[in-house]
Amino acid sequence: MELRGTMQVNSSGHLVIGGCDTTELAAQFGTPLYVIDEVLVRQMAQRYQQSLKQHYPSSAVAYAGKASLTMAMCKIVESEGLSLDVVSGGELYTAVQAGFPMERVFFHGNNKSRSELELALTHGVGRIVVDNYYELEFLQQLADEWGQDVDILLRITPGVEAHTHTYIQTGQIDSKFGFGLADGAALTAVRRALAAPRLNLRGVHCHIGSQIFDITSFGLAVRMMMEFIKRVSQEVGWQLEELDLGGGLGIRYNNEDSPVGPEQLAKLLAEAVHQAAKELDVHLPALIVEPGRSIVGEAGTTLYTVGSSKDIPNIRRYVAVDGGMGDNPRVALYQAKYEAAVANRMQDQGRRKVSIAGKCCESGDMLLHDIELPELIPGDILAVFSTGAYNYSMASNYNRLPRPAMVLVADGAADIIVARESYQDLLRNDRIPERLMQGAVANSARKE
Amino acid sequence: MELRGTMQVNSSGHLVIGGCDTTELAAQFGTPLYVIDEVLVRQMAQRYQQSLKQHYPSSAVAYAGKASLTMAMCKIVESEGLSLDVVSGGELYTAVQAGFPMERVFFHGNNKSRSELELALTHGVGRIVVDNYYELEFLQQLADEWGQDVDILLRITPGVEAHTHTYIQTGQIDSKFGFGLADGAALTAVRRALAAPRLNLRGVHCHIGSQIFDITSFGLAVRMMMEFIKRVSQEVGWQLEELDLGGGLGIRYNNEDSPVGPEQLAKLLAEAVHQAAKELDVHLPALIVEPGRSIVGEAGTTLYTVGSSKDIPNIRRYVAVDGGMGDNPRVALYQAKYEAAVANRMQDQGRRKVSIAGKCCESGDMLLHDIELPELIPGDILAVFSTGAYNYSMASNYNRLPRPAMVLVADGAADIIVARESYQDLLRNDRIPERLMQGAVANSARKE
Repeated sequence: MELRGTMQVNSSGHLVIGGCDTTELAAQFGTPLYVIDEVLVRQMAQRYQQSLKQHYPSSAVAYAGKASLTMAMCKIVESEGLSLDVVSGGELYTAVQAGFPMERVFFHGNNKSRSELELALTHGVGRIVVDNYYELEFLQQLADEWGQDVDILLRITPGVEAHTHTYIQTGQIDSKFGFGLADGAALTAVRRALAAPRLNLRGVHCHIGSQIFDITSFGLAVRMMMEFIKRVSQEVGWQLEELDLGGGLGIRYNNEDSPVGPEQLAKLLAEAVHQAAKELDVHLPALIVEPGRSIVGEAGTTLYTVGSSKDIPNIRRYVAVDGGMGDNPRVALYQAKYEAAVANRMQDQGRRKVSIAGKCCESGDMLLHDIELPELIPGDILAVFSTGAYNYSMASNYNRLPRPAMVLVADGAADIIVARESYQDLLRNDRIPERLMQGAVANSARKE
Repeated sequence: MELRGTMQVNSSGHLVIGGCDTTELAAQFGTPLYVIDEVLVRQMAQRYQQSLKQHYPSSAVAYAGKASLTMAMCKIVESEGLSLDVVSGGELYTAVQAGFPMERVFFHGNNKSRSELELALTHGVGRIVVDNYYELEFLQQLADEWGQDVDILLRITPGVEAHTHTYIQTGQIDSKFGFGLADGAALTAVRRALAAPRLNLRGVHCHIGSQIFDITSFGLAVRMMMEFIKRVSQEVGWQLEELDLGGGLGIRYNNEDSPVGPEQLAKLLAEAVHQAAKELDVHLPALIVEPGRSIVGEAGTTLYTVGSSKDIPNIRRYVAVDGGMGDNPRVALYQAKYEAAVANRMQDQGRRKVSIAGKCCESGDMLLHDIELPELIPGDILAVFSTGAYNYSMASNYNRLPRPAMVLVADGAADIIVARESYQDLLRNDRIPERLMQGAVANSARKE
């Protein structure tokens, strides 16, 4: 098990993140607890920024908020000079409330609503990434109504399949997203966008998938997109100035994962664009990448307290913790394999095979299957690694479990960036109609 | 496609539920919208109550709240005379706030925390269903500390596998739940429970799985449990008075599903218990069943508004709606197959194969694959059926989409029982640490 980011083990054998003893974090803030290593987030942001600038000066990095968006995260992303991807009115609202500079916002989504698009127009987001004909027409109408020019990109489906879980493969032809290259939809969309006076077509976007280890697919995508840029230039006479290649770099969830660094991706992308530009005789577009998971994923650790256990002779040992699929649905959803350690006994060399169960009333609520760990006892703090992305953002209140708190740690300080939900929070929107208070039964039910 | 509960089609060709025109519900309350057919909920509750009483007078029906628990649902369950299963402090808190009679509450869970057990003791819940040795010891200590007697059941794993999705199979030997029969754990647990002065061992509980169509497994479970009751009587000299057989009846999600009615289940259970009692010469225990999905599942319908669409020649037509895996994660999680109709054009005989996508930025966010529906156009109201269970209860804010409102409909009236989440709700627990407001960067990040 490899430590991530600023992780260390102190003289008490405790896991330390951002200079904070995780057992103290658990005691102070309770468990389950999402712990975010601020320095690692910033380092990943800087590595993306710097390596892309180095290999391709006309470039930008946009953090993909769907991985995990909080107001604090907006502040960090802003201070590192990154742009921001949002995919809904809720994410946009979060950025607005955090005072994020709106000109650095990209607004994605395959089915943006009128109110979401109006929110985007109100705040003047930098780019709206148009996904389909319906949106193109709708946005054009809105822009006319509002008398407001809108900078857009078109989302293109390049027909490139990344090798990853089918749920998070997005570049293949059979996709709910974007205008297809192969069937001519992309070219038609360009023509329609150019015919809309208030829409400024700045460029094109594609996203081939998530949790990608084999980055050769990115090279293929670049080639397809550059060929499209050339085709648009030749057939339509329009220069697409921006090429947004989406995100998708994989991270280390477990020791079978071999993630590729931002530097390698930046180098590959820059070379692929330069080469294609040369071979195809196309201008060099500005380049945008949109990492989410690879910026925040490994920076997140979830702390749980160990509770009950169950030994089934010759079959399995189950140990239950105080969270589960509510705070981390990725195991049930994608069969994700995580790594974990006993945060209060990091130097314990004991190893016993165990499966870690969540506390939801559902057999699917497992966090780790057949992992080797020191003997676990009630009260131990279990740290599950690489939970920074798609954990909090996908968390539910299944079984009416309150969602965990999130703390940002750095230099020995821990700050709450998401307060723990209370039972009161769970009922905030619950209403009992007056007639139920009076015990009245609907007529048609009474007839039974 | 078969209409559920009180559903009708009115003269305008609109879907009507509980006497309410669903297109008007969509207009009034917005979409996505969970619509609950109160009469169908009550009818299912009554069918369970009446058929079980008919075949087995000494019995009780407990609604399994994890399927969908709101304060309004507690009120309905209470007024129908049912008991209530809760699986967490949050569910128990909901019942408390709704004024549900605590003596009719069963508290389940494989890893109840101290604070949850204390909440249960504070309110004096009817039964705590003890899952494992750790909890048995812990509860005994708490009961001693509090000087309070506690009525308990023991959760037994009978080794019966129901034919259903592995995530929701729970009775098999390799389960995170309960005391195994085969390895002697169940008998040991009985002895330990009896040795604890403040714990009153009232009976045993088992739950073999969910969404079950072949109810013969229930007969097997009854036999195993009755044999255990006999064994306890013979070897320990203790009469287990209550036999709780859990829930698990399947519902109609689509036309491939052939659900079994509560009447058949009640008959089978009663006969199986009577027969086992006779053959084994055992007393007749009181019988408890715990339906969740089969009470509320078909009573729920989700209304969505149709938005963008995408035609991929020779491959697929995608139509996107304004919700998706956030409000219904069951498609991505269990590959669940739903049925749907166009609520504003129920008499439209047109049929075209289409796949219904959600609006989340994820390929896995699909609601229906390759379903035949009339041609869909933007603004149509799509009704997805049988979404009453494990939709709202498992809903997330993925992509920061607010969770839908829920309305209870009956006799032409619609009452909000869960108000729609607002963007403000999403940020209620968000905090920006002071130093981030000032743009400060952690020292260790600056060293880079």
